[in-house]
Amino acid sequence: MRFDIITLFPEMFEAVLGVSIIGRARKKGIVELNFHNLRDYSQDKHRRVDDYPYGGGLGMVMQCQPIFSAVEKISEGLNDKPHVILMSPKGQTFTQNKAKELLQYNNIIIICGHYEGIDQRVVDGLVDEEISIGDYVLTGGEIAAMAVVDATARLLPGVLKEEDSYNIETFGNGLLEYPQYTRPVEFRGMRVPEILLSGHHENIEKWRKYQSLRETYTKRPDLIKNAVLTKEEEDILSKIIQEEK
Amino acid sequence: MRFDIITLFPEMFEAVLGVSIIGRARKKGIVELNFHNLRDYSQDKHRRVDDYPYGGGLGMVMQCQPIFSAVEKISEGLNDKPHVILMSPKGQTFTQNKAKELLQYNNIIIICGHYEGIDQRVVDGLVDEEISIGDYVLTGGEIAAMAVVDATARLLPGVLKEEDSYNIETFGNGLLEYPQYTRPVEFRGMRVPEILLSGHHENIEKWRKYQSLRETYTKRPDLIKNAVLTKEEEDILSKIIQEEK
Repeated sequence: MRFDIITLFPEMFEAVLGVSIIGRARKKGIVELNFHNLRDYSQDKHRRVDDYPYGGGLGMVMQCQPIFSAVEKISEGLNDKPHVILMSPKGQTFTQNKAKELLQYNNIIIICGHYEGIDQRVVDGLVDEEISIGDYVLTGGEIAAMAVVDATARLLPGVLKEEDSYNIETFGNGLLEYPQYTRPVEFRGMRVPEILLSGHHENIEKWRKYQSLRETYTKRPDLIKNAVLTKEEEDILSKIIQEEK
Repeated sequence: MRFDIITLFPEMFEAVLGVSIIGRARKKGIVELNFHNLRDYSQDKHRRVDDYPYGGGLGMVMQCQPIFSAVEKISEGLNDKPHVILMSPKGQTFTQNKAKELLQYNNIIIICGHYEGIDQRVVDGLVDEEISIGDYVLTGGEIAAMAVVDATARLLPGVLKEEDSYNIETFGNGLLEYPQYTRPVEFRGMRVPEILLSGHHENIEKWRKYQSLRETYTKRPDLIKNAVLTKEEEDILSKIIQEEK
């Protein structure tokens, strides 16, 4: 899978997506990331990429020409038609399911907005979908693009060491993860729950299921509605609902 | 306002939060950011910060000692008791309102989780609140911490050039922003809406209000419910609802 990111700040990306799990996945050739400086595609002699908004108003707006040129130039080098994403607070909210959905594309181009906005004709004439990572305003689309690349690329086969990790972690099965503990057994008077020290795998499994459902029910009840639960999990959940009443 | 970030990857942050609007705000002394390497606080001779999970399971868990030590050491140098945040997919979802709420703290410490999880005693005994930037799984808390710092710090007085920018942009007033256009008037057959070229400010203002409400109603109807609308905006909205039927 290949991502091409169009940005005013290409140097931001290598520091974040060049290390750790994604850095290793790139070295292994599982995912290819390319960072393109939008200014390199400007036909303006001062490499300008923005101008004043029509109709007045504060701030600058990113122009069509450099963005269209960048997407077209990058697309020339690809075998498949790329899926073009604009990071924008006006987009559809990114979720774990959306990350899974993006895995269908071999080539994704991500445009990072900046300034007050981006010429609407980019959205109307070039972009396949607008994605937002949440209901808050960021300085630019860069951090948002990193989140999308990270969340998506780590789902590719071979990126995580153990394939099973996908399913036990938060959102993998639609629930929040159970609490984790590691050494020491006691830290400042706080002890690890005895059951985790018991070595009784079946009971530990049950306890974790219960905790996972309880965490989700108390902290994020909205997630419970969409989670696909087994009969056993549904029974546990009914018990939790009784307890919390 | 001061943020102290505890992370296994301090070098990620300078590249992202050292430039653009947040970089300038730091130079002006409006916001102070410090990035701390968690390994520097480990009492282990190999600077280890993780260990196997009690009860079995895949992956490693971040230990209590280095995180408690880091928060305590950083707190010693502060005048105010810091607000301690853990970035975690299990946290409360970050929003623009949460960003505004965080402005009340002079000192915020952000802990970035990594690996399969973090010892629950950190959450129970050290953390004031867990924050998630959205319902997706990231490799670590670093990108999430960047989003929180960026979205929050840019609301501090003096960070954006024009204070008014806060209110016209998406989520500033609870609505999505109207479409923006800049030169040229025509690009590949797509023209800027005539009204924006008219110079008639009152009509432009009306058009923008209509567009902002229409974008929000069609793309994110959930936002409309919580938006505080003027009488004029409510009238426009009723018209839009009729049109869309």
